[in-house]
Amino acid sequence: MATAALGMQKLLQVGTKIVGVGRNYAAHAKELGNAVPKEPVLFLKPTSSYLDNGGTILIPHPLESLHHEVELAVVIGKKARDVPEASAMDYIGGYALALDMTAREIQASAKSAGLPWTVAKGQDTFTPISSIFPKSAVPDPDNLELWLKVDDEIRQKGPTKDMIFKIPFLISYISAIMTLFEGDVILTGTPPGVSPVKPGQKVTAGITGLVDVQFNCEKRKRPGN
Amino acid sequence: MATAALGMQKLLQVGTKIVGVGRNYAAHAKELGNAVPKEPVLFLKPTSSYLDNGGTILIPHPLESLHHEVELAVVIGKKARDVPEASAMDYIGGYALALDMTAREIQASAKSAGLPWTVAKGQDTFTPISSIFPKSAVPDPDNLELWLKVDDEIRQKGPTKDMIFKIPFLISYISAIMTLFEGDVILTGTPPGVSPVKPGQKVTAGITGLVDVQFNCEKRKRPGN
Ligand SMILES: [Mg+2]
Ligand SMILES: [Mg+2]
Ligand SMILES: [Mg+2]
Repeated sequence: MATAALGMQKLLQVGTKIVGVGRNYAAHAKELGNAVPKEPVLFLKPTSSYLDNGGTILIPHPLESLHHEVELAVVIGKKARDVPEASAMDYIGGYALALDMTAREIQASAKSAGLPWTVAKGQDTFTPISSIFPKSAVPDPDNLELWLKVDDEIRQKGPTKDMIFKIPFLISYISAIMTLFEGDVILTGTPPGVSPVKPGQKVTAGITGLVDVQFNCEKRKRPGN
Repeated sequence: MATAALGMQKLLQVGTKIVGVGRNYAAHAKELGNAVPKEPVLFLKPTSSYLDNGGTILIPHPLESLHHEVELAVVIGKKARDVPEASAMDYIGGYALALDMTAREIQASAKSAGLPWTVAKGQDTFTPISSIFPKSAVPDPDNLELWLKVDDEIRQKGPTKDMIFKIPFLISYISAIMTLFEGDVILTGTPPGVSPVKPGQKVTAGITGLVDVQFNCEKRKRPGN
């Protein structure tokens, strides 16, 4: 049991990519003024952006805040390529609760210039994540409630059943584009309520009845500013 | 010697990300109708897109071709975060010659919709790459000649001295956004002459006097199409 759990936590260390899915909840697409997509919107985050539970989200100069996006993370358990929807769930090694932190102003400029979202979403500490919990703890990943608070105020709360593209479809779709390896992560999108979090504030988030995490926010200090 | 060389080839296996730099040669930015950037344009490719020398570039359905972009790849040798330009070269573990294969139609749609370039650039076999050669083989990375042929026709030839943002600046700039780890790769951009390569054609490319590689192109076959 302990060994299995330890093995599970190692998954994130062997993983080499995070595939984000954008606009996968209709109400969130709308709150940002985006159309509901006909196909999944995919982007990559580097694994260097992970932050363990209890850590500090760093807001880089000259930003004053970042947007939180609470998401269900699907952790791949074995190599997946061209996986049919019908067997897609077999490729899941576990789940986690993650935040897809986003520098919204940088993303907005990138979008209007037709440029990638890498700097908006890929910086260190921009993917806070819980420990991994096993598939057995989640009989129905389509029936979870995600929530997020900034200090004592609830900002996001939504059921995973509102996902436009469901988990088996996402695994099948993504694995037809790129091979997924053990430990790779899919961030399945965020329900509505994204909003800024500022230095000195605390973010708590979770999946009701399953897991919760908390992170502080600070301005990032770096050599030269 | 053999051991050191083997160790060097392992770098790509331990790496977890490929950071692409777009529009880093003015003449290439112009040929696609893009402005010369004031800051590096960054995007991510997954390491699942690597293809070893001699392999086959797969063109996914329903595309008829992919664009080739021949690039100098910088392979990071040790963890790099907030690295100053003055010491940036110390973080290089070696170099390679890479192709940043791009589904140009998909990228064009993504650009006009303000969406990421992930599907345009991140598919399996979209980053053909040579073996790594040591820093000692490259006294001046700013003075190399990149070339690429499709069948017997030369399509790209350009000197790395035409890079807008030089290697030390790129390492410093990127490492202030995200930690670079051993084996991570920076693709430094492509000189002009990008053009389609089709199923049945052969791509050869190299750095004059240092390395050359070759790849076949085929339509990708997958379950269902
Ligand atoms: Mg990656
Ligand atoms: Mg998100
Ligand atoms: Mg390129």
